[in-house]
Amino acid sequence: MIRLLIAGAISFALAAVLTRVLIDLLTRSRIGQPIREDGPQGHLIKAGTPTMGGLAIVAGALGGYGLSDLISEIRPSFESTITRSGLLVMAAIGAAGLVGFLDDWIKVTRARNLGLNAKLKTAGLLTVAVLFAVLTVNLTGVHTQLSFLRHDIPGWQLGSVGWVIWAVILVYATSNAVNLTDGLDGLAAGSGIFSFAAYTLMGFWMFRQSQAASTVVLVDGVPKVFATANGADIYGVPHALDLAVVAVAMLAGCAGFLWFNAAPADIFMGDTGSLAIGTGLAALALVTNTHLLLPIIGAIYVIETSSVMLQVVFFKLTRGKRLFRMAPIHHHFELLGWRETKVIIRFWMIAGGLTMIALGLFYADWVANSGTR
Amino acid sequence: MIRLLIAGAISFALAAVLTRVLIDLLTRSRIGQPIREDGPQGHLIKAGTPTMGGLAIVAGALGGYGLSDLISEIRPSFESTITRSGLLVMAAIGAAGLVGFLDDWIKVTRARNLGLNAKLKTAGLLTVAVLFAVLTVNLTGVHTQLSFLRHDIPGWQLGSVGWVIWAVILVYATSNAVNLTDGLDGLAAGSGIFSFAAYTLMGFWMFRQSQAASTVVLVDGVPKVFATANGADIYGVPHALDLAVVAVAMLAGCAGFLWFNAAPADIFMGDTGSLAIGTGLAALALVTNTHLLLPIIGAIYVIETSSVMLQVVFFKLTRGKRLFRMAPIHHHFELLGWRETKVIIRFWMIAGGLTMIALGLFYADWVANSGTR
Repeated sequence: MIRLLIAGAISFALAAVLTRVLIDLLTRSRIGQPIREDGPQGHLIKAGTPTMGGLAIVAGALGGYGLSDLISEIRPSFESTITRSGLLVMAAIGAAGLVGFLDDWIKVTRARNLGLNAKLKTAGLLTVAVLFAVLTVNLTGVHTQLSFLRHDIPGWQLGSVGWVIWAVILVYATSNAVNLTDGLDGLAAGSGIFSFAAYTLMGFWMFRQSQAASTVVLVDGVPKVFATANGADIYGVPHALDLAVVAVAMLAGCAGFLWFNAAPADIFMGDTGSLAIGTGLAALALVTNTHLLLPIIGAIYVIETSSVMLQVVFFKLTRGKRLFRMAPIHHHFELLGWRETKVIIRFWMIAGGLTMIALGLFYADWVANSGTR
Repeated sequence: MIRLLIAGAISFALAAVLTRVLIDLLTRSRIGQPIREDGPQGHLIKAGTPTMGGLAIVAGALGGYGLSDLISEIRPSFESTITRSGLLVMAAIGAAGLVGFLDDWIKVTRARNLGLNAKLKTAGLLTVAVLFAVLTVNLTGVHTQLSFLRHDIPGWQLGSVGWVIWAVILVYATSNAVNLTDGLDGLAAGSGIFSFAAYTLMGFWMFRQSQAASTVVLVDGVPKVFATANGADIYGVPHALDLAVVAVAMLAGCAGFLWFNAAPADIFMGDTGSLAIGTGLAALALVTNTHLLLPIIGAIYVIETSSVMLQVVFFKLTRGKRLFRMAPIHHHFELLGWRETKVIIRFWMIAGGLTMIALGLFYADWVANSGTR
């Protein structure tokens, strides 16, 4: 657990300092976010706020993840090293952040809020997703059945190819969902904190269970793993502790960024941040084999995305009528008269509440399957 | 765990509906909070905002606590009933809320922000604290040594009388600390959510440990408790599950209230809310025997109170100089130029971060003492 605390502390501090530096740098070079012209009127005053703050989130998380490993090398222990699963998730986060950064950069230098040609952005994100999925299937012991928590659903054994396709869909969908959510000061960063907290706790819990179920003994100098009578590892997720470190590093990165992104925002995360967060959440769900909990943990992103889809479908079906005053739905509530901070805090509460429910389900599954009463 | 979810859902819904009703009722009868005349200028526009919203928190929590018991009676199980410890904490919360309500009522009807004669308020709160402490010592199996988590500190065995004195000090100090914290929209309610979340998790964890360590068997129709080989109950806290229900009911009560109290606030909690929250936190710390974790879980209240004390002492020592621009410290940051919402969100992040550290310590203590590796 020490490595979790170290990683969290470093990521938070690093992300906060870098966000501060970015604000100064971008303000001095007059690089600000153009605001979408079809958003609520009140948001036009936000024009000129620096963007690409996601750089600080990603750099903070990478720093916390890497440095916490180096520090724990000083007092080596069996569990606290970098693993393939953790590295692949971290690399996917970094690469998605890079795609977002290119998009943001083109946006701010061309001074239009349209961004990288949508096709190029999609291509970049899909490339990241495919690479992550293929490498994960080949290099780690990831489960390739689609499961609700640990249960195999009959007929949903995907196999390697099916799993890669599923993984690409999940990464792509989640990234775009977080991207849509990122429309109010601190909304995506704050919701991200709750989502990554869920993966921190679940990863650590999986690690503790696997640890209780086995013990490592040196046999002729070689470490060997033996089963113990203390419990059963019902998850079978490799590298769970390192995945919890990735999650806590992203949590703390979001928190360090939110320190300045909190309403009224001094900086936005941009696509750099939202694609990195979305990819990170999807990747963590995939490698911890909790895919079907993701829509509950990330309910706020699902709600935001559904609102856009419903709006478009309704508009087409009724030939011109609108279901919401504006989509994504956070703007709908603003136009209903809720003040921006109220929408943000209420959406955070929904994110937090559903995260708790998801953790409750995760725990209930453990109680039902671990032989504990 | 079902009862926790039921209690949380009922308390949230009840508190939110009651807060909404209170806003209408108080606005219609033109009963609003006079704003302290020596606070920041910007806060004067808040004059007239309804107060006493704490009524909704307390009523919501009482409702969720009681109704969840009734509902779980339908499918009775050994653990899910109301207990003496839980009832005493809930009663203390209600009584402290009543003292706060009387204070608020006198404030709004006399239309001055001075409130109940300070002596009367103190007397009321001390009466509640003494009654709670004496009844708890006599009616429940509460531990009377002062401990950091479960460890006895040599020489700190307080005995019944010493424990009552200590309990009264803790209830009084925490209530006043939360009261001081309640100066920005949503600050106390949001911080309260984190604090009560800590007690929900710790209470539930204590319950699970005690459950794993024993089993109930019907011997000639009479339930008897036997030890099992599954673990040791290192806490020995009676009624831990019911205490977790109290905590989650207060958490959800704060959340339902925060739905409307979020910046910009439609209602304030008043002393009704802050005294109830403070008393609840202190009482939970006392009965779960985690007194010395309370200053970490409630760090934000400690910081706020210390800022006032330091300000006064510094002022007297230097004969007129100020350490902070204004105390409590949240006003200091406002006067430094932080916008109110930024102060609130940053303080929430501090509360959340320290709550996580406190839970980490709690867990580390369990690892160190439960024989788990």
